[in-house]
Amino acid sequence: MKELRAEILSIGTEILLGNIVNTNAAYLSQELAALGILVYHQEVVGDNPGRLEQALTESFARADIVITTGGLGPTTDDLSKETAAHYFGRKLVRDEKALADMRQMMEHSGRTMTPNNLKQADLPEGAIPLYNQNGTAPGFILEGNGRILIMLPGPPSEMKPMFDEQVHPYLRQKSEQKLVSRTLHLCGIGESAVEYRLKQRMDELVNPTLAPYAKTGMVDLRITAKAKSEEEARALIAPVEEEIRAQFGDFVFGADADTLEGVLIERLADLGYSITTAESCTGGLLAARLVDYPGASRVLKEGFITYSNEAKEELLGVSHDTLQTYGAVSSQTAMEMAQGAAKRAGAQAAISITGIAGPTGAVPAHDGQPEKPVGLVYIGYYLDGEVSYEECRLQKSRRGNRENAVVRGLNGLRMKITEKFSSKTSQ
Amino acid sequence: MKELRAEILSIGTEILLGNIVNTNAAYLSQELAALGILVYHQEVVGDNPGRLEQALTESFARADIVITTGGLGPTTDDLSKETAAHYFGRKLVRDEKALADMRQMMEHSGRTMTPNNLKQADLPEGAIPLYNQNGTAPGFILEGNGRILIMLPGPPSEMKPMFDEQVHPYLRQKSEQKLVSRTLHLCGIGESAVEYRLKQRMDELVNPTLAPYAKTGMVDLRITAKAKSEEEARALIAPVEEEIRAQFGDFVFGADADTLEGVLIERLADLGYSITTAESCTGGLLAARLVDYPGASRVLKEGFITYSNEAKEELLGVSHDTLQTYGAVSSQTAMEMAQGAAKRAGAQAAISITGIAGPTGAVPAHDGQPEKPVGLVYIGYYLDGEVSYEECRLQKSRRGNRENAVVRGLNGLRMKITEKFSSKTSQ
Repeated sequence: MKELRAEILSIGTEILLGNIVNTNAAYLSQELAALGILVYHQEVVGDNPGRLEQALTESFARADIVITTGGLGPTTDDLSKETAAHYFGRKLVRDEKALADMRQMMEHSGRTMTPNNLKQADLPEGAIPLYNQNGTAPGFILEGNGRILIMLPGPPSEMKPMFDEQVHPYLRQKSEQKLVSRTLHLCGIGESAVEYRLKQRMDELVNPTLAPYAKTGMVDLRITAKAKSEEEARALIAPVEEEIRAQFGDFVFGADADTLEGVLIERLADLGYSITTAESCTGGLLAARLVDYPGASRVLKEGFITYSNEAKEELLGVSHDTLQTYGAVSSQTAMEMAQGAAKRAGAQAAISITGIAGPTGAVPAHDGQPEKPVGLVYIGYYLDGEVSYEECRLQKSRRGNRENAVVRGLNGLRMKITEKFSSKTSQ
Repeated sequence: MKELRAEILSIGTEILLGNIVNTNAAYLSQELAALGILVYHQEVVGDNPGRLEQALTESFARADIVITTGGLGPTTDDLSKETAAHYFGRKLVRDEKALADMRQMMEHSGRTMTPNNLKQADLPEGAIPLYNQNGTAPGFILEGNGRILIMLPGPPSEMKPMFDEQVHPYLRQKSEQKLVSRTLHLCGIGESAVEYRLKQRMDELVNPTLAPYAKTGMVDLRITAKAKSEEEARALIAPVEEEIRAQFGDFVFGADADTLEGVLIERLADLGYSITTAESCTGGLLAARLVDYPGASRVLKEGFITYSNEAKEELLGVSHDTLQTYGAVSSQTAMEMAQGAAKRAGAQAAISITGIAGPTGAVPAHDGQPEKPVGLVYIGYYLDGEVSYEECRLQKSRRGNRENAVVRGLNGLRMKITEKFSSKTSQ
């Protein structure tokens, strides 16, 4: 069986100038690896027809499939589509559905079509169009002389769904082997701890393979099996999944499309509980993460952003004494925030976050209080009348600290719910 | 004056598998651009001598300088140094200082030298060594036949200081030109409209050049000039910046490191105003965006997430009648949310957002109310006693709609403040 080879060719002067980091190439490489498609080269060229055509020539000398990102925008320097059509000896023809989609989007948002927009609806003759649900530029797949060119838009918010929904199924068909992946999501345990415990198994396993991927505050374990049918592949995956779940227990919060916030919300909804949030340093990120999950309105009615001490007192009823004695960044304040928010919102569950996100704001030791360094975060929990807290010492950027704190908070409450109800729900 | 051309060649299977994002290429590209050295290609290859030698051959056919990152580690598959020496027809010789440094570092951290470590102290004959203060592998600069090869270690924590301290001064001597960029940030006008109005100018301009870049809800315009000194380059940029500011007026909200939230917060702080937020569909994203700016605490004391109608009534004082008659997604509700939040927080400014983020939730026409499609968002503003609103029809994903609404809200308030105070502040 022939193994397919692919190259990733990113188009964009802004990448060559170092203004943006090429996350698209990493994303596509990971996806192609999971499909069993080999990637030996990634390349970046600017919006320059001559250099793009040369790059296409070189890439197709080495690979069967070339996937490009970028260069499909409405601006004049986006000439990649013309170059690709020329390379394949095709004309550009207007795609009526792409045009209609674009008109509708423009009308809907009250914008006017420009001649540059019209050009975006042109595709090489004979191409399979990839319609864009998240932007104006369609992508396409072009086959010819045993070569496959796949052109995708540059913005990750457009490229990723287009790849997932349209290109992935196409490539899976091209590959004669069925490659099936199952991703288990872990939270509450570090990447190196997971790797340490699984190192030997990862080395031993050949089919399925097992590989870890770190995400902010979480670790994914991907089990990938190759077989002639999807059923066979799934049968290879099942015992390894079972083994991992047995080893990591409640650290495994879900699989595949599950999200931490989704799992927590469904758990709360099952219990008939509602939740509220009280945020200081995360300033709304925690609530926004919950709202990311469609259907959050079943359990989240309101949330509080209490950045100042006054707001903590007035909105949440944190006591003036607590703030004076222990400070805003303390376990005591975190717990009073969670309890106060739950009471205020009439909710059965609450998460509060207060901390020093950085880059400045460290508080030296004073009045018997220990030093409070950047990255110190307290998370308060309220669940059914019980109040508790968690102390975190994070060490990332301001943004990273806040995202990490949000993940810790969501996972902390999830694990408390499991603990509390495990005796009742276990068989 | 001869323009130097460079290419960046990253070596590492982990990049080709998508396990790490290639931030080194972005860093080096940015540094080289600032040095006036042109980068037309970035490339990634695995730890494979054959493919690396081919990549070197191709790169040196196009460029004067090739900078590699990675492939200098102690593991057996790191054969890049041998490949480079072979390409230049040189032998590898042991560098005694590199070896001594390595011994000292190993002793210091209690590790033992392995034969693989010894190999790390070998450099091509005649190379300029680049000693590594932050790891074991030295890098080097190799000149020959008008070609310059610079090999750097892969970990960013080793590569960056080595480049900054040793390679940058070397390249500055080689390059006679300075490249200076200035980026203007625009909000409130679409990318294609900007492009349409500037098309002719972008085509005409050679030095400086002018190029647009789209971001969520915003457009960047980058002016880039080349000259013998930074001062000369800045003098070339100034009149083009003036021209763009004159043409786009208040759509230009800042330059270079300015952010929309930062500009708004500084404006509010200058006025001695505080701000609050009232969010429904964005669920905290607006407040989180404000808190992203260090120093937000000067103007933001608290914010409200009112996802349910009850919370809108109870926390913000939106009237029951308004919600019954016009619905939660209406201009009337948006304005009452903004006004209620401002009153509640004692703030001079407030932004509220209520809408249908999707993917579901469209409300058909009923009781004299028009249809409310997914993507319909109302933004309410409160500024110094005046209440107003903006209707947006967005059409991105759930996430995209919410981010877009946040940008619209921040920019809307910014423009209202400018309008209100322009007569007082204009000279």
